[in-house]
Amino acid sequence: MSEAVAVKADRVALETYVRGVMAGDRAILARAITLVESTRAEHNVQAQALLQELLPHTGRAFRVGITGVPGVGKSTTIDQLGMNLVAQGHRVAVLAVDPTSKRTGGSILGDKTRMNRLAIDPRAFIRPSPTAGTLGGVTRKTRETMALVEAAGFDVVIVETVGVGQSEVAVADMVDFFLVLLLAGGGDDLQGIKKGIIELADMIAINKADGDNIPRAQRAAAEYRGALQILTPQSALWHPPVVTVSGAHNLGLDALWSHITGYRDKLTASGDFQKRRQRQAVEWMRDMIGDRLLAAMRANPVVADELPALERDVRDGRLLPTLAADRVLALMGLGSG
Amino acid sequence: MSEAVAVKADRVALETYVRGVMAGDRAILARAITLVESTRAEHNVQAQALLQELLPHTGRAFRVGITGVPGVGKSTTIDQLGMNLVAQGHRVAVLAVDPTSKRTGGSILGDKTRMNRLAIDPRAFIRPSPTAGTLGGVTRKTRETMALVEAAGFDVVIVETVGVGQSEVAVADMVDFFLVLLLAGGGDDLQGIKKGIIELADMIAINKADGDNIPRAQRAAAEYRGALQILTPQSALWHPPVVTVSGAHNLGLDALWSHITGYRDKLTASGDFQKRRQRQAVEWMRDMIGDRLLAAMRANPVVADELPALERDVRDGRLLPTLAADRVLALMGLGSG
Repeated sequence: MSEAVAVKADRVALETYVRGVMAGDRAILARAITLVESTRAEHNVQAQALLQELLPHTGRAFRVGITGVPGVGKSTTIDQLGMNLVAQGHRVAVLAVDPTSKRTGGSILGDKTRMNRLAIDPRAFIRPSPTAGTLGGVTRKTRETMALVEAAGFDVVIVETVGVGQSEVAVADMVDFFLVLLLAGGGDDLQGIKKGIIELADMIAINKADGDNIPRAQRAAAEYRGALQILTPQSALWHPPVVTVSGAHNLGLDALWSHITGYRDKLTASGDFQKRRQRQAVEWMRDMIGDRLLAAMRANPVVADELPALERDVRDGRLLPTLAADRVLALMGLGSG
Repeated sequence: MSEAVAVKADRVALETYVRGVMAGDRAILARAITLVESTRAEHNVQAQALLQELLPHTGRAFRVGITGVPGVGKSTTIDQLGMNLVAQGHRVAVLAVDPTSKRTGGSILGDKTRMNRLAIDPRAFIRPSPTAGTLGGVTRKTRETMALVEAAGFDVVIVETVGVGQSEVAVADMVDFFLVLLLAGGGDDLQGIKKGIIELADMIAINKADGDNIPRAQRAAAEYRGALQILTPQSALWHPPVVTVSGAHNLGLDALWSHITGYRDKLTASGDFQKRRQRQAVEWMRDMIGDRLLAAMRANPVVADELPALERDVRDGRLLPTLAADRVLALMGLGSG
C-alpha cells in the first residue's frame, strides 16, 4: 500500500472509531479500548490520535474511585450501586486498576462474574484492568479508557482498586471522589488501614452493615468518624463522612450516593471541582515527563552499565548520593559539572 | 597560581577541613558548613570532595526529626531536651529545614535566642536553616550539614521543621525517628493536623502538659492514641506512642527519650534501622537524579519556550497530557517517537 493510501486508510479508520465511540457503539468502544491497551507502537500512535480527537468530548462523567481489600465486598457493592444508578437513568462504566493483573487468569477486579447484574445490563459497561505490567502503565491505560467511555456517553465512571502498592494514590489522582470501603472487623478489633488511605478518602463506608452486624458496623463508623475529625482541619471545605452500608442487601447506598452528589455540587459551586481536574491533568503530564526522563536514563546503555554499582556504593555508604547523581547525569550528557 | 600549585593548595585546604571537622573544631566545622551552603560552583566542588572524604566517618549519630506549628513550643522543648541529653554525656546538634528562610531576617527555626541554654553550651551546636530558596536545595544542604556534624562527633542530631509545604516529608526522609509535637487546643477542640503527618509520625507528644492544662493534654493524648490505633496495622513492628510533655517545665522528656531509644534498640535488633538508612540513601540519590533531569528539562531553551503553552493546553483540556509529554521529550532529543 502506498504511503498516501495508508495515510488515507488510517484517517478513515480513525473516523470510524471517533464516530462509533461517540455514538456509544459498544463493539467499537471495546475495539478502541483494545487499541489503547495495545503495546504495539503503531497502535499507540493511532490510539493517541483517537484520544486527541475525542478530547473535547470527554470530562462529562462523574468519576468515583473505590478501594477496599479483597473480602470487603467491593464487587457486590459496585454491582448494587451500579444497578441503583442505571435505574435512575445513569450510564455506568466500571474500570479497574490492578497492577498485578496478568493476561491469563485475569484480575480479581472488574470480574464480570462478580458483578453479574451490571455485567449484562446494556446501560453499563465493565472492563477488567489493563495488563500493562507496571502501575504507571496500568494507570495510563485506565485514564485513557476512562476518556473513551466518557466520550461514549457514560456519565458515571467507577474505578476500582485493591490497594496493591501505590494503586490507591494512582486512582485518587484520576477521579473526582475517592471512597474507601472497610469492614467492622471481628470482635472489638478495628481493621487497620494503610495510613496513606485516610489522607485520600473523601468518604469511608463500613460495609456488611446488615442483620446482627449492624451494631458493630455502627461502632466502627463512630470510631473512624472520631479519627477523621482529628485529622481534618476545621477550615476544610469537605469533612469526609463515615457511613454504614450493605452492598449485598442494598442498604445505605442511596444515602452514600447522596453524600457523593452533595460533594460534587458543593465543589462545583466553589470552583474547586474544576480546579481539581485541571491540577490532575497537569500533574499527570508532569508525572509522565518525569517517568519518561527516568526511562530514558535507564535505557541509556552507559547508565545501565554503571547504575547498579552506583546504587550499591550509595546504599553501603561508600559513595555520596550527590556524586552518584552527578555521575548519572554526566553519563547522559546532561551534567553541569 | 599554576594549575599544579592550585591543585596542591586545594588538597591542603581539604586536608585542613577534614582534620578540623573530625577533631570537632567548631570554627572549622562552621566554615565547612558555610562551604557546603555556598551557591558558588567552585565551593560546590570542594564541598563534595570534603563530604566524600568524611563519608566513612558519618552515620554514627542518632537522627531525630521534630515538627510542630509555630506556638507549639518547639524551641523551648528542644532546648530542654538538648540540655537533658548533654547532661547525660551526649553531644547534640540542632539543624533546621525551613524553605521560607531568607538570608536577612533569619528563620524562626534554629533561632539561638529561643534555645538560649543550648546555644551557649559547648557540648551542643545549633545551626539555622540554610537559605537555599527551594525545599530541594534546603533539604540537600541540611543532609550535607548533618554529615558534617556527625563526622565532628555529635551523636544526636535533631532536625526541626515547621511544616511548610512538604518539609515534614523531606525531614522524615533523612532521620531515624520522626516526632510530631502538638497542643491540646482550647476547650474540646482538638488541633487538626495535616493528614500526611500522621503517616510519618513515629511518636506524637502533646506539649504544655503542665499545671491546669494537664487533664486537657491527657484527654487529647487519649484521642490521638485511639486514632493512631485505628491507623496502625496490628502487625506493625512499631506502634507510635502518644505522650504528654512540658518542654518549659521539663516534664515527661525522659520518658519521651526512653521511647525513642527503645525504638532505636528494637529496630537495630531487627535489622530495620540499617535498612531504613540504606533505603533513605538510595532514594535520596534517585530523588536527586529525578530533580536534576527535570531541571535539565526546564533549562533546555526550546522546552522552556514551549512548556507554559503546553501546560495551559493540558490544563484547559485542549491537549492530551501524553502528547504534551511526548512533545517535551522530543524537544529534548529523548523522544522515542
